[in-house]
Amino acid sequence: MSTPAFLAIDWGTTNRRVYAIGADGGVLATERDGQGLLATPRDAYAGEVASLRRRLGDVPVLCAGMIGSARGWVEVPYLDCPAGLDQLAAGLRWIEPGRTAVVPGVALRDPDNPDVMRGEEVQLLGAVASGAAPDNALLCQPGTHCKWARIERQRIVSFSTAMTGELFSLLKANSLLAQFLDGPVKDGPDFRSGVALARQGHALKALFGERAGALLGLRGSGQVAARVSGLLIGEDVRGQSLGPGETVYVLADPVLGDLYVGAIEEMGARAVLISSHDAFVAGIDRIWRLSRER
Amino acid sequence: MSTPAFLAIDWGTTNRRVYAIGADGGVLATERDGQGLLATPRDAYAGEVASLRRRLGDVPVLCAGMIGSARGWVEVPYLDCPAGLDQLAAGLRWIEPGRTAVVPGVALRDPDNPDVMRGEEVQLLGAVASGAAPDNALLCQPGTHCKWARIERQRIVSFSTAMTGELFSLLKANSLLAQFLDGPVKDGPDFRSGVALARQGHALKALFGERAGALLGLRGSGQVAARVSGLLIGEDVRGQSLGPGETVYVLADPVLGDLYVGAIEEMGARAVLISSHDAFVAGIDRIWRLSRER
Repeated sequence: MSTPAFLAIDWGTTNRRVYAIGADGGVLATERDGQGLLATPRDAYAGEVASLRRRLGDVPVLCAGMIGSARGWVEVPYLDCPAGLDQLAAGLRWIEPGRTAVVPGVALRDPDNPDVMRGEEVQLLGAVASGAAPDNALLCQPGTHCKWARIERQRIVSFSTAMTGELFSLLKANSLLAQFLDGPVKDGPDFRSGVALARQGHALKALFGERAGALLGLRGSGQVAARVSGLLIGEDVRGQSLGPGETVYVLADPVLGDLYVGAIEEMGARAVLISSHDAFVAGIDRIWRLSRER
Repeated sequence: MSTPAFLAIDWGTTNRRVYAIGADGGVLATERDGQGLLATPRDAYAGEVASLRRRLGDVPVLCAGMIGSARGWVEVPYLDCPAGLDQLAAGLRWIEPGRTAVVPGVALRDPDNPDVMRGEEVQLLGAVASGAAPDNALLCQPGTHCKWARIERQRIVSFSTAMTGELFSLLKANSLLAQFLDGPVKDGPDFRSGVALARQGHALKALFGERAGALLGLRGSGQVAARVSGLLIGEDVRGQSLGPGETVYVLADPVLGDLYVGAIEEMGARAVLISSHDAFVAGIDRIWRLSRER
């Protein structure tokens, strides 16, 4: 491997993904492991970064994600909306000048709909910077906490978060529905019927009916997981009040991406799937270049 | 204690409540313990009932609740809506004729909104039989699974269940919001602002904002529990699409009852609080009398 220009770390609560990025913005190497915040004592971050430098190259390191939260390495204040890549680059918190920095998160200080993000801002703005999404767009990044962001002139102007993935996990692990949620979940008639149910606007009310429908033999218990997934993702999409034919740019892996694309289409809108990894690389590379120009 | 006419057991998954009921329908004694289904092997039910008879009187026993489910003592098929106390009495499953019986549950076999109940039917119909609620009414029984039932001419014609209490427990035990949900929950400005947020119809979307609002210092972390409770109970009440000034009869203990009364009022409807214990006794006594007339 040739020497990278810098290392980028998407450092989250549970997982860590490292990219060695070349002078041309290309990815020279990538690693993914479980060395997230939960597995890293506060005094171990410097050693972790030193270890990465030994393996991948003794070059500058940019970190993004929950690493910049109160329970991470160093707390970096949120930037306010509207926020673009230029603000993120200007807001870098240098732990060691020119060597190691943490990207700030973004906050929406709307008293009625406050929200925060750390890490997704790089991917959302990277998707736009790379041209995968236009300068004015609605972006969606599904996951444990699904982020929806309105981008105007390449800046995040507002966003909201739904606990969609976390709720499905909670229901699957510990709820009355748990025994029914082991079945397959993929876009198809069962998933779509869950989305259609969510369109009626009463997803929480409909959840218990999924158990009752199986108990009464109105449907197979193997259908419940896909229907409940459709209900929750459908509720998430409904929350955005999409216009007919409106386009949503979805940043996700293919599995979760397919579900969101299906739900968005079922709601009468249009979806374009974008690789979230490519978007992260495009975003962090742009932040790196902007930070060098300063 | 004088000899009771019969013993009634409200036998649920976790708890069991026993009532010794006199010939005039009055409660001579009552016991509550944790001897629910989870704590009782299938071959131990007969012995449990024999033990109660030794303590409280060697009289007939009527059981209601999850005891009649597949994981209980004996599975009693659901009755279909519309169901009244006369149907419940006719549907009693006698384990030993004239001595020990289990009350059937009720099912709503609507393909779009299927639902089931076991135990609540006695209380809902008992509230009406005792005159605490009118013959045509909307009743609500909050709890882990909140039941809403439409009663016409003293029969349950339709009902729905919301997993409101279970969702709050799941969020409190295991979610990202857990650390914020230890605060006090009572009807007041914080609870009402959660209900008002639910009125907008996007409760799932609003959940994450409760964490963000506390992180950003827009409100105290001590306010979050009451706001989230208001959001979930508000979403539950919203699901009923109550008309302005419509009356809901709420069967609950005073603590949970106050929250539902507050949320119902915040939604512009009217609430009347009824004791669920009194309703159960009225319902099971009426079933007892009807079974003797047959």
